[in-house]
Amino acid sequence: MHTDLSLAPIGVFDSGVGGLTVAREIMRQLPNEKIVYFGDTARVPYGSKSKNTIIRYSKQIIRFLKTKGVKAIVVACNTASAIALEEIRPEMDIPIIGVVKPGAKVAAQKTVNKRIGVIGTEAMINSGIYTEFINRRDKDITVITKACPLFVPLVEEGWLKDSVTYEVATRYLSELKDKDIDTLVLGCTHYPLLRNTVGEIMGDGVSLVNPAYETAVSLKKLLEENNIAAGNEHRYASNMYEFYVSDTAEKFKRFANSILPFHIESIGLINIEEY
Amino acid sequence: MHTDLSLAPIGVFDSGVGGLTVAREIMRQLPNEKIVYFGDTARVPYGSKSKNTIIRYSKQIIRFLKTKGVKAIVVACNTASAIALEEIRPEMDIPIIGVVKPGAKVAAQKTVNKRIGVIGTEAMINSGIYTEFINRRDKDITVITKACPLFVPLVEEGWLKDSVTYEVATRYLSELKDKDIDTLVLGCTHYPLLRNTVGEIMGDGVSLVNPAYETAVSLKKLLEENNIAAGNEHRYASNMYEFYVSDTAEKFKRFANSILPFHIESIGLINIEEY
Repeated sequence: MHTDLSLAPIGVFDSGVGGLTVAREIMRQLPNEKIVYFGDTARVPYGSKSKNTIIRYSKQIIRFLKTKGVKAIVVACNTASAIALEEIRPEMDIPIIGVVKPGAKVAAQKTVNKRIGVIGTEAMINSGIYTEFINRRDKDITVITKACPLFVPLVEEGWLKDSVTYEVATRYLSELKDKDIDTLVLGCTHYPLLRNTVGEIMGDGVSLVNPAYETAVSLKKLLEENNIAAGNEHRYASNMYEFYVSDTAEKFKRFANSILPFHIESIGLINIEEY
Repeated sequence: MHTDLSLAPIGVFDSGVGGLTVAREIMRQLPNEKIVYFGDTARVPYGSKSKNTIIRYSKQIIRFLKTKGVKAIVVACNTASAIALEEIRPEMDIPIIGVVKPGAKVAAQKTVNKRIGVIGTEAMINSGIYTEFINRRDKDITVITKACPLFVPLVEEGWLKDSVTYEVATRYLSELKDKDIDTLVLGCTHYPLLRNTVGEIMGDGVSLVNPAYETAVSLKKLLEENNIAAGNEHRYASNMYEFYVSDTAEKFKRFANSILPFHIESIGLINIEEY
């Protein structure tokens, strides 16, 4: 069965630019799907904010995305996925998934020695959420976490293959290298852009888990299960992807154009407090 | 003449923790003055936000500080000083100063060869505000600017005397070293914490201007002119300094305790959107 809803776009949101790595994976793995992306650039970062604030922000963004007729929502923000998703889901009439659960699930499946490392922002690591989700799947897994606060600004500076980034990463990861992990979760949406550096430092014995990739896999399954996956109706559409932000779009545009396989000209500016 | 107002505190605000370097200078240079500090940690950073948003935020904070009976306000945030101060001043019934003008003034006085460098966050540099304020004082001065986006996260990581920080600073400052400047403005409130590294790299031929220091000098003059400077009435008060933030206080407390000469235990949490 093929419903009208299948033609509707996927809503993807993040506190800023990081979620574009998730949007990029969806574009790759689900090339028939339209996407409406919202980056909350006026209120980034979420990591330092309270649970109530993050829930309120997430609800406002979902109300905005619904005005765009989305058929499903991807919370492409680790903090919002961890802190707001379970509170919001009961109120939703369309499917919603986050980035934490798919990453945690695959990490728990991949580990052989039951020792998993997780890297992320300070707020993400302090939340303990990956540990919780991994241990929900298997309580015998030991999770070793490490905050890497300089990775986001290094990525946003564009220093992806760089001696400074390599030195910072070596320093951050040295603790994890001593802990005999066989699996490492890239627990921040910016980090897939550093996966070569991280992979090189951790070595072949450690599998990297990219939650952006796993989220796109989960989304595909979710759309199929709900019978709302797009066919190739949009294949020649010129407006497959729409981008919105809550404040000045210049930095967003520059970052988006550096990581997406096409050039974005137009980005909508939204007063998200009105939603 | 000595008014009651002289006993009132100074209000100091910033988008986050950076303005603590300004508060610290006020504590050093005006040890008789009480301070009420507000860090807008829920809405940091301001640099990526629009002019209207920054004016709205600044007005909310000023309304909050006035509930604390402040006699004068220091905008210890480069972005708010640059973007909101001139709009807000006409509405104020107490003195208000920012950090940009004092720094620009001293830089214009210090330079001999009329070539000044300015370093700051990307948003600050893009605003062009230091160039404008310096050229208002002397249009023949050439201002060379350089954004240093990694400096804030390096300072917040606590890597102040560190090989990575030295390498990043060497890279950022190399452009400025070729430009024959004799004066360099530390145009971000975090940067005074890197002044030894910056000074070493730039060498003895370049004078550093610390706007936090110059702002405290200006504040002292302003209080005296308005006849509202405190005497030593507060000398033995236990509550000289009060700190408030708009969201989770833990990171703020850690940073504050790393740079202030005393230990902060209590930080008030304010819902700033209510002001």
